[in-house]
Amino acid sequence: MSDLTHIDANGNAVMVDVSEKPDTERKATAKGSVYMRSETLARIQQGGIKKGDVLSIAQLAGIMGAKRTPDIIPLCHPINLNSVKVNLMCDDARSAVDIEAMCKLTGQTGVEMEALSAVSIAALTVYDMCKAMDREMRIGDIRLTHKSGGKSGLFEAP
Amino acid sequence: MSDLTHIDANGNAVMVDVSEKPDTERKATAKGSVYMRSETLARIQQGGIKKGDVLSIAQLAGIMGAKRTPDIIPLCHPINLNSVKVNLMCDDARSAVDIEAMCKLTGQTGVEMEALSAVSIAALTVYDMCKAMDREMRIGDIRLTHKSGGKSGLFEAP
Amino acid sequence: MSDLTHIDANGNAVMVDVSEKPDTERKATAKGSVYMRSETLARIQQGGIKKGDVLSIAQLAGIMGAKRTPDIIPLCHPINLNSVKVNLMCDDARSAVDIEAMCKLTGQTGVEMEALSAVSIAALTVYDMCKAMDREMRIGDIRLTHKSGGKSGLFEAP
Amino acid sequence: MSDLTHIDANGNAVMVDVSEKPDTERKATAKGSVYMRSETLARIQQGGIKKGDVLSIAQLAGIMGAKRTPDIIPLCHPINLNSVKVNLMCDDARSAVDIEAMCKLTGQTGVEMEALSAVSIAALTVYDMCKAMDREMRIGDIRLTHKSGGKSGLFEAP
Amino acid sequence: MSDLTHIDANGNAVMVDVSEKPDTERKATAKGSVYMRSETLARIQQGGIKKGDVLSIAQLAGIMGAKRTPDIIPLCHPINLNSVKVNLMCDDARSAVDIEAMCKLTGQTGVEMEALSAVSIAALTVYDMCKAMDREMRIGDIRLTHKSGGKSGLFEAP
Amino acid sequence: MSDLTHIDANGNAVMVDVSEKPDTERKATAKGSVYMRSETLARIQQGGIKKGDVLSIAQLAGIMGAKRTPDIIPLCHPINLNSVKVNLMCDDARSAVDIEAMCKLTGQTGVEMEALSAVSIAALTVYDMCKAMDREMRIGDIRLTHKSGGKSGLFEAP
Repeated sequence: MSDLTHIDANGNAVMVDVSEKPDTERKATAKGSVYMRSETLARIQQGGIKKGDVLSIAQLAGIMGAKRTPDIIPLCHPINLNSVKVNLMCDDARSAVDIEAMCKLTGQTGVEMEALSAVSIAALTVYDMCKAMDREMRIGDIRLTHKSGGKSGLFEAP
Repeated sequence: MSDLTHIDANGNAVMVDVSEKPDTERKATAKGSVYMRSETLARIQQGGIKKGDVLSIAQLAGIMGAKRTPDIIPLCHPINLNSVKVNLMCDDARSAVDIEAMCKLTGQTGVEMEALSAVSIAALTVYDMCKAMDREMRIGDIRLTHKSGGKSGLFEAP
Repeated sequence: MSDLTHIDANGNAVMVDVSEKPDTERKATAKGSVYMRSETLARIQQGGIKKGDVLSIAQLAGIMGAKRTPDIIPLCHPINLNSVKVNLMCDDARSAVDIEAMCKLTGQTGVEMEALSAVSIAALTVYDMCKAMDREMRIGDIRLTHKSGGKSGLFEAP
Repeated sequence: MSDLTHIDANGNAVMVDVSEKPDTERKATAKGSVYMRSETLARIQQGGIKKGDVLSIAQLAGIMGAKRTPDIIPLCHPINLNSVKVNLMCDDARSAVDIEAMCKLTGQTGVEMEALSAVSIAALTVYDMCKAMDREMRIGDIRLTHKSGGKSGLFEAP
Repeated sequence: MSDLTHIDANGNAVMVDVSEKPDTERKATAKGSVYMRSETLARIQQGGIKKGDVLSIAQLAGIMGAKRTPDIIPLCHPINLNSVKVNLMCDDARSAVDIEAMCKLTGQTGVEMEALSAVSIAALTVYDMCKAMDREMRIGDIRLTHKSGGKSGLFEAP
Repeated sequence: MSDLTHIDANGNAVMVDVSEKPDTERKATAKGSVYMRSETLARIQQGGIKKGDVLSIAQLAGIMGAKRTPDIIPLCHPINLNSVKVNLMCDDARSAVDIEAMCKLTGQTGVEMEALSAVSIAALTVYDMCKAMDREMRIGDIRLTHKSGGKSGLFEAP
């Protein structure tokens, strides 16, 4: 593990030079949760034609959000994602919506930020959809769970 | 507190009709944290010309991120924010960077999502800047802390 | 009915000056259709958990597309839409998905282009989702059906 | 021809994983038309210094629109287009502006959506430029006319 | 004249709070030039059907660029421009393309940055269109020439 | 040196077809300056915790601006930049902030426009940050200083 790669010797921000890195298949998975009142979670899961709407809108927002990563994270490289998958699941025991995002790229730079952005934007979308019911929701536990490819090799969250 | 305002009686997503709402001065504040190893936090705070670079880049990303909210959150209204402030502080005791964002608007719709997006994008930027040192950082405790203006009136997080 | 308002006396493109126009409540509705093979339409309507997915993704794309109108149509004014509604319905007799979009604004310029963009982008999304099954789909009949507010008053398509 | 590739076995939207596909030279051509009153078409074609302005603005909007495809179509991959050409021609007999767009890419995914988006956005721009004269214009016949490259090989519209 | 309004007492960047400012009609005009070889300028002005193409594409890019100002200038407020005009003229004596942009808004914040961005992006577009002929073009003299409305009142460049 | 490559034989704008060009390592450097009153420059350089804030915000805006080049320059190809570096230096003698940007890409098209956009957007950001103090600042001398890679080979500004 090294240092703050996005800041050069003079303290300037840089978009890291990846031109010497080989193209490798890179994959990253991130997770996070939206914690809420049990009534809010029940409402999301409620039957009828509305079933799953909050989750499917948040899922699509997460996929689209992964694509916007270089627009919103200042020093991320623009990349051509090969694949994005986002899944949302309700956990009644923890009264939470759990979100997982997986991104893939064959390229010169990792896709952790894309996976983390997808989770964050899906979580914000859950909040937006439910905020009229529950203002005290809390977004948390956003973290990288898996990363493969590139010089640093495999990472699995402990 | 009512219901899922973004979904109509047929289960369709809608951008809520705010045309009957009066223009009022609206304000929202949100908070969140990035938890990390103490060495990572120390590196962010390290003296010399680099002081504060991670925090100032993340701060700017948060302000710019507030402006991108209607692009990334599917059912948010496009709005003309009057003010955005984002602050980041290091807390050694909790080994965390704490983020607070405040947004203001005189308009027909609230600015909670803008404040929450600003916090989330600033947090993602901290992660991006430090990820070469510490892959196990965790973004959490993103929540609304204050909201005023509009029909629902004042909200202060408990 | 007048002339090409977006081109000035010297032949230059202009974003029309609306500063003298009063704020009025403006509303526009547009419609369009995606014509396809009956098997494709049947697949979209197919029961089970997948029901409606193509339509709900296209609906969300239409709402988000309305917001992007000033980014993609060169001379459209940036505006703060008050409301966007998009609906998609299957018509077995015509083997078509019919799309309707309604936009509202209290402001100085009309929202026809936002409604037409929402229909077009929803239609393109239906095409994208189904193109592996049916390359010969055809998007058509995109037109303004209703417009109210502003100097030119009420328009209802014949 | 297979199935709805953008929806997985659980009914979730996915950005299709193209990481196993080889880079091939891909090309797609799409067409569409804007039907209008003959006076409107005559005005577009009118001589003098203004000649062609509507068409050249719409042409540029189409090229720029092709580049925005992954921003507006939810499940499209971000790609680096090699070439975009858009042409607009007036057809007096059918009282229509005909639009053709051609996109090229050496990559892992097709460019049909980029060509179709370019046609759609050029058509919307024609509508926007002429709407003060003619509200009853109609955008139609948007379809893929040619596709080559990739696993599915050559497609020519019948 | 005061101070660096975008930086607060703690040295943090802020999007200035304009919520206490009244809505006034604001207008700004900016100018700039692209200096080039006389052959390059002659090529831009060359007769035939191509006449004016470089200038009309740059003009449209300037108008669209004005709308993107809050996306590219970090601390600019998102605003709803009322009017944007961009003109380009060839000056043989100075071997330059001169660019002028005018923006209008009824609102709480000025539009200087929108006018300056329009000029800059039009200038960059001239460079892009002509760079295969002339790599030594130089963009210069970009400045505010007029500003009215708002607390600081009228400004006319000396 | 050839001709206006972005305009075809019929006078239509085109995004140049680069599909036959080989991938090569390409690099471009551009420079520019913001000229201002000496008091303004002194304020930017003023000591204390605010040191460098204007310059570091403008630097980040330049890096992010390089990434937005295909969005704002109509006929630029979307590309995946490998590296962006932007530096700003104060020159008391000329009472100017000097800006230099360097972009790298391994690909089929050059990165001059990305470097020039980065310089322009950093310069606009300096203007925005200081405009409350000094409305008469002037952005100038924006030019390409170095270009390597691609068919046309090495260019060094005289």
